[in-house]
Amino acid sequence: MQTDDTILSIAEAEELIADVLRASGAAEAAARSVARALVAAEADGQAGHGFSRIAAYAAQVRSGKVDGHATPVVAARRGGMIAIDAASGFAYPAIDLAIEELARLVPETGLAGAAIRRSHHCGQLGAHVERLASRGLVALMVANAPKAIAPWGGSAALFGTNPIAFAAPRARGEPLVIDLSLSKVARGKVMAAAKAGQQIPEGWALDREGRPTTDPRAALEGTMIPMGDAKGAALALIVEILSATLTGANHSFEASSFFDAEGPPPGVGQLILAFDPGVTAPDFCDRIEVLLGAILAQDGTRLPGTRRLAARERARSEGLRMPAHLMAEIAQLRAG
Amino acid sequence: MQTDDTILSIAEAEELIADVLRASGAAEAAARSVARALVAAEADGQAGHGFSRIAAYAAQVRSGKVDGHATPVVAARRGGMIAIDAASGFAYPAIDLAIEELARLVPETGLAGAAIRRSHHCGQLGAHVERLASRGLVALMVANAPKAIAPWGGSAALFGTNPIAFAAPRARGEPLVIDLSLSKVARGKVMAAAKAGQQIPEGWALDREGRPTTDPRAALEGTMIPMGDAKGAALALIVEILSATLTGANHSFEASSFFDAEGPPPGVGQLILAFDPGVTAPDFCDRIEVLLGAILAQDGTRLPGTRRLAARERARSEGLRMPAHLMAEIAQLRAG
Repeated sequence: MQTDDTILSIAEAEELIADVLRASGAAEAAARSVARALVAAEADGQAGHGFSRIAAYAAQVRSGKVDGHATPVVAARRGGMIAIDAASGFAYPAIDLAIEELARLVPETGLAGAAIRRSHHCGQLGAHVERLASRGLVALMVANAPKAIAPWGGSAALFGTNPIAFAAPRARGEPLVIDLSLSKVARGKVMAAAKAGQQIPEGWALDREGRPTTDPRAALEGTMIPMGDAKGAALALIVEILSATLTGANHSFEASSFFDAEGPPPGVGQLILAFDPGVTAPDFCDRIEVLLGAILAQDGTRLPGTRRLAARERARSEGLRMPAHLMAEIAQLRAG
Repeated sequence: MQTDDTILSIAEAEELIADVLRASGAAEAAARSVARALVAAEADGQAGHGFSRIAAYAAQVRSGKVDGHATPVVAARRGGMIAIDAASGFAYPAIDLAIEELARLVPETGLAGAAIRRSHHCGQLGAHVERLASRGLVALMVANAPKAIAPWGGSAALFGTNPIAFAAPRARGEPLVIDLSLSKVARGKVMAAAKAGQQIPEGWALDREGRPTTDPRAALEGTMIPMGDAKGAALALIVEILSATLTGANHSFEASSFFDAEGPPPGVGQLILAFDPGVTAPDFCDRIEVLLGAILAQDGTRLPGTRRLAARERARSEGLRMPAHLMAEIAQLRAG
């Protein structure tokens, strides 16, 4: 099977995906932005936010669930805070706009925030905040997503896996990037166990009555357990309010699926904050090296993102592997 | 024993504590600010941040570890971002200043942030962000604290329990307040087990070699396990960078104890952010009721802070209980 796979350079993969999206009816700018984000996630070893999304994205443009011609706009602003309307298009063009605006604002405002509404799946959050850290800023991002986690004590999904990402510049090397979702494990692991006919460990998920389960099929009908149990559910609520209530987006329990092409747009939200460390800590980049050095001085530790950077390096030198079944799907999608 | 306890009104308790602090050498404004914060924590049922701190605070003023005459100042500002130097005094006067500045800035800047350095134990974080939410703002706060949690895979304490607090205004009733520390359980529970000669459950703590332990004495020599394990350790790193590296404060592993009166000031940091929801979500207060209503519609759920508000109500109507041993200690401290 491996022999049928195609090896693509990063540029080739971007071109191919942009092509599929254009063929599905997306405008040039949106197609390019989405292609860049999916390829970056795939290169970073985040397969769940990479090539695996192409077909679903294309189908949603075709059905109109995603407006492939939407142009994100700054809908309101005051000082360092802006509201961005993603206009029911893809998330990535809105995030691109947010990053440009934040980087432009911060030299004036010290701290700036972008609240994105009417948005969609935002993929690998770490990659977005990393772009701000590459410009010398400290960045924090939260997002909501279709419901997957129950409120603590409850049994029905209400919060998304509501990820948190953070990035900071360093004196040496690439920015530090931390990216985590608030479910104990990714739902993809439960799907994989269901496919393989295997049990899942207790503590991953609840069935639809809110009882712990080791049956992956019962788990898929139920909810994912938050990391840190009750405290994690409280964090999911914080992220829900910051990324949806505060942005004017749909709450997770109001949002349609990121995967199928049916129904109204998901309309989820994202909040991105950027700090210029020069205002409060001119020696930030030296001090973070002291902190990270103290971590690495302990045996058995590593910094977040180590595997991601290694995967990226490999992708740049060896290219990306597009499985044969996806390549066939893409050929069909390009043909229209 | 209970019959020897003293029942104090909130005003009486504040007066008593301010008196102790003045007798220990604190300036009037600092004594008042600290007294208010300790009494508010005690009233909210947060005993670990309430009366139990009086003696240690007084001793630190006496020894000079806390500068009882420090005046917090805005040391730098740009747009919505300010740096506050707590000047090795108590944290609460610096937090009071931060709250006033943030509330003043936000109508102009939409989003504002206060980075506090050279600070001390900040007690019940939820009470601080609640003051911003009472003014219609959404607020987020993080703080670091002397080392208690190891980096993931390591064995030596490096991060504090690094709490996160959040508050949001509501259309109905008191603000929503969420307040959590990043250790799986509070260190106080381990201390209680050690005193009682009881074992602790596996999963709470590691011994000083980084091995899981159920022996509370070994745990006290070791480290607390973060909530959510590896993900929680990553969150502790995010909070460490935001509250210490970005504020210019000491990192948790560089900070002296909040309890004893020895050594240099702890010099920890706090970061407080305030958002005016009117910029990005004019209907915020109605929408948060929809979200909180959806949570409460599920059997078995409750909102964070329910117990805290009930305790506060009781304290207002029935007063606060000061145990006899603390009252005796206070009498000694007032005598000088």
